[in-house]
Amino acid sequence: MEYIEEMPVPAAARNERREPGRPEAGGSPVSVEFRVDPARYRHWRVDYDGPVATVTMDTDEHGGLVPGYELKLNSYDLGVDIELYDITQRLRFEHPEVAAVVLTSGKDKIFCAGANIRMLAASPHHDKVNFCKFTNETRNGIEDATANSGQTWIAALNGTASGGGYELALACEHIMLVDDRSSAVSLPELPLLGVLPGTGGLTRVVDKRHVRRDLADYFSTRPEGVGGKKAAAWRLVDEVVPRTAWAQTVTERARERAATSQRPAGTQGVTLTPLAKDRKADAIRYRHINATLDPARGVAEITIEGPQDDPPKDAQGLHKQGDQFWTLAMTRELDDLILDLRTNEPELGTWVLRTQGDPEKVLAYDRLLTGSDTGSDTGSDTDATATPTDWLAREITSYLKRTLKRLDVTSRSLIALIEPGSCFAGSLLELALAADRSFQLAGTREEDGPNNGEPATITIGTMNLGPLPMANGLTRLQTRFLGDDKALAEAEQKQNQKLEAEDAERLGLVTFAPDDIDWDDEVRIAVEERNSFSPDALSGLEANYRFAGPETLETKIFGRLSAWQNWIFTRPNASGPDGALRKFGTGQRADFDRKRV
Amino acid sequence: MEYIEEMPVPAAARNERREPGRPEAGGSPVSVEFRVDPARYRHWRVDYDGPVATVTMDTDEHGGLVPGYELKLNSYDLGVDIELYDITQRLRFEHPEVAAVVLTSGKDKIFCAGANIRMLAASPHHDKVNFCKFTNETRNGIEDATANSGQTWIAALNGTASGGGYELALACEHIMLVDDRSSAVSLPELPLLGVLPGTGGLTRVVDKRHVRRDLADYFSTRPEGVGGKKAAAWRLVDEVVPRTAWAQTVTERARERAATSQRPAGTQGVTLTPLAKDRKADAIRYRHINATLDPARGVAEITIEGPQDDPPKDAQGLHKQGDQFWTLAMTRELDDLILDLRTNEPELGTWVLRTQGDPEKVLAYDRLLTGSDTGSDTGSDTDATATPTDWLAREITSYLKRTLKRLDVTSRSLIALIEPGSCFAGSLLELALAADRSFQLAGTREEDGPNNGEPATITIGTMNLGPLPMANGLTRLQTRFLGDDKALAEAEQKQNQKLEAEDAERLGLVTFAPDDIDWDDEVRIAVEERNSFSPDALSGLEANYRFAGPETLETKIFGRLSAWQNWIFTRPNASGPDGALRKFGTGQRADFDRKRV
Repeated sequence: MEYIEEMPVPAAARNERREPGRPEAGGSPVSVEFRVDPARYRHWRVDYDGPVATVTMDTDEHGGLVPGYELKLNSYDLGVDIELYDITQRLRFEHPEVAAVVLTSGKDKIFCAGANIRMLAASPHHDKVNFCKFTNETRNGIEDATANSGQTWIAALNGTASGGGYELALACEHIMLVDDRSSAVSLPELPLLGVLPGTGGLTRVVDKRHVRRDLADYFSTRPEGVGGKKAAAWRLVDEVVPRTAWAQTVTERARERAATSQRPAGTQGVTLTPLAKDRKADAIRYRHINATLDPARGVAEITIEGPQDDPPKDAQGLHKQGDQFWTLAMTRELDDLILDLRTNEPELGTWVLRTQGDPEKVLAYDRLLTGSDTGSDTGSDTDATATPTDWLAREITSYLKRTLKRLDVTSRSLIALIEPGSCFAGSLLELALAADRSFQLAGTREEDGPNNGEPATITIGTMNLGPLPMANGLTRLQTRFLGDDKALAEAEQKQNQKLEAEDAERLGLVTFAPDDIDWDDEVRIAVEERNSFSPDALSGLEANYRFAGPETLETKIFGRLSAWQNWIFTRPNASGPDGALRKFGTGQRADFDRKRV
Repeated sequence: MEYIEEMPVPAAARNERREPGRPEAGGSPVSVEFRVDPARYRHWRVDYDGPVATVTMDTDEHGGLVPGYELKLNSYDLGVDIELYDITQRLRFEHPEVAAVVLTSGKDKIFCAGANIRMLAASPHHDKVNFCKFTNETRNGIEDATANSGQTWIAALNGTASGGGYELALACEHIMLVDDRSSAVSLPELPLLGVLPGTGGLTRVVDKRHVRRDLADYFSTRPEGVGGKKAAAWRLVDEVVPRTAWAQTVTERARERAATSQRPAGTQGVTLTPLAKDRKADAIRYRHINATLDPARGVAEITIEGPQDDPPKDAQGLHKQGDQFWTLAMTRELDDLILDLRTNEPELGTWVLRTQGDPEKVLAYDRLLTGSDTGSDTGSDTDATATPTDWLAREITSYLKRTLKRLDVTSRSLIALIEPGSCFAGSLLELALAADRSFQLAGTREEDGPNNGEPATITIGTMNLGPLPMANGLTRLQTRFLGDDKALAEAEQKQNQKLEAEDAERLGLVTFAPDDIDWDDEVRIAVEERNSFSPDALSGLEANYRFAGPETLETKIFGRLSAWQNWIFTRPNASGPDGALRKFGTGQRADFDRKRV
């Protein structure tokens, strides 16, 4: 969070604001666009020097997503983070040569002041929560790049990093802080704003950096934070560096890290060309995905088309297709659709997921990416010679993994409909496994006649057995069969077999398998019923049931920390007229209801 | 939650109610008493038959803790659960012969309808949250008795168990449901009340019983629940039994479970005599613990006295002292104090923890309980011959473990002050390790003169190294030094050595070690500052920092599930004038703000 004591808020500006936390009739007034053109970045620069990229935050004060606040001191709003997300994606796909990323600031004496407080205070509750979710996902993506993509992120804090600014640094593998008697790291949210750091800060401080819990407690109540040698001694940063040695040391660290990377050198990147999209009030169309939006029923009906053609023969062909390769193109569309719907359509509480196409082709694309040809009986002619070590195949798979994780943490009810003509196989079967419920039509539809049409099937492929883990570290199949190893083994043994509804239901792979007579009613009731329930209770239910099993840094951030932050955001002590978030910068103290829960 | 469709609420009664979720000037109007006399149970019966105890819920409709609701259909309020907690404690201490506990209902066709909805709807937010916390702790205690005390709890559902009623069953090791075409288990909170099950239900369904997540989702949206063979097939219960075979099968299961228990036979129990307590508005006095309450500063100052005398020589002596044995007596007092302050003093947001006495004696009591005499250099003459297998020693240690866990999940800031004359050693050192921050005075106080008075010390004992794990499965030392095995080993090597402030601080065992000159100011500022922060943000901060490291069923329930429930409880969709919790039973539908977060 931005920490600027001296910034006064004119009374007039305050009065213009919406009441945070109050339901509004019209939903979010701003339609947010997640597609960005790097040529139009307003807040970031990226410089390339061989294996080292330097990402410099330099926010345009007047470049806020909506009017009403200024992005002073490198404070950020959703628009700033959308650009950062774009940078992380392009680094991975367009720059295979980059093996270390230095994250720093273009402003003097300040790295980043965190999320803009004016923006936060003016945002309705669901916008606050959604904003935090997206920034969290981008930070998790930075950790994923370090862990799985050979691109190690280094935070070069050339000035104070406070709140979300420090949380951004916490997502990096190595944190350097300039030692100049004034620069510090801090989490001033609690003492100044009466909320928690919203982007995983608390969890990362104790669970990732292993700061001792009582020191972490003290640190999180000091608005001015901790700098110098104490910051290093307490593990809040990895090293403090005098200003005189700053530039050289940062360069050294980046080169050291880059030298240990397995990132391929001398390879051509894949350009992420502009994503074609037709966005209307009641429909969103991409090349491979269509969504129809039905506010009356509170439903978005999403259909994903499988590949039309066979995959290229090998990795060379994959590289040649670049961002037109079906899996990558489809994943980019799905990613954009999730973000669009989550942000711009908060009242569409149920997403109905369908697929259409040839399951064999989906599996063939999967095999090209995983480099596995299992000698299966699927009859595919594809000669899948790409190995899983091909960097682009790995990046595409990893991107699909992150996009499916985004679906998992989306607080919408997910219902998968598996109908004749669908292609829930391998990577697309993950959609059904991610859903809260799935329905597979038993037999064929009467309208298709007794001898026409194939029954709907699902197929487990290699993509379901490891490459696409959830945030809890398990595959969606493992999570589904938690504590039932026998059922898991039985399902996994069916790899590459087309499973019709009765088999899929018996194996526990789908929830219900109604036949043509019952299908319409059962599905309609499930969707209508979902729309009649409390949206809050549904979010809570889904957040608990989707992540059975082990907990990780990620699940703790999304499950535990975010839930607490949700609660705190919505309480009058933060968001009420006398709450800390509203009083900040006015010179007045918040008026707290002192009761503990 | 209670599920009674037909219960209408007179408009007059509704109007009398307090606004849930709104801050109230006077705090909770009811002072709740947690000490109960078994002769005065209003809602439960306990019958003993050799190794089997049968605990029968039969709520007195007119026995609610406060006026305004009737406890129909075995619905419960805090008063009902206080009696159940008393039963669980007496079973463990007073009935060593009991090796299996059958939990059943004295009402026809209903096991338990869960928490009373009228009570919930009328409760302010902090009372709702506190109520759920206490019921959770009692259910965890039931699981602890099964796991660690050889008392296996069996839920004999002789009628429908809905909401909190089913959650009570979920805490049992074995769930039997009568198969009579009408009895079912259900979690109707989401569809009927727009909230989540408040007592661990969601977590236990998927993480303990391994119900498949999509079936769990479906189950949790069906108000009527699931009964019969489907309930067993989905693992919601362990077996369904026809009514004709009911009594006999329940008896068989109880005897089978009892037969496998290591619970000692032919042993005399220890009576838990009435706990002496002097409760005033500004002070609470027990024999070993005093607390002064300071609403102006928002502080409870708690002092725990160490033992006056040496411990008895052996297990025989321990049994003879019974509930007067210092550790047990002190733990009972601490338990009652935590519950009293948590429930009746919600505005005392900071608890300052002190001890007074001889650290050697505390360690001697610990050694008697753990059965260890480490040949330490503490100079104790005690001949600790009790083995850790002595059932009473085990029960006392386990009770202390549960009480310290209660402290961990208490949403109050905990500050430990380690001063000359204190006895933060072994079991009492856990208080300082549980605290959010600790201060140890370096050197002596000037007022004590240069040659008088010993400096304050802390001592690690066997009790700190295993017998008192936190909910995350780690000791408080392990949690403190998470990810720093070297520091942990260094600290553990200091076992039985008195550590003065400088050493304790260097080893990372205390947060700060101010000397006499700085002590008063530092402590005063820490306490005052704490009281100036948002109580909500503090609760969230503490809940995240106290449980670094691995997650368990317990931490998931307190950390993830409770946080979501906190949020949902406080949202207008549940608790607002048109929220589901307020509209239930009126025949009107709730009016939801449909926006998802």
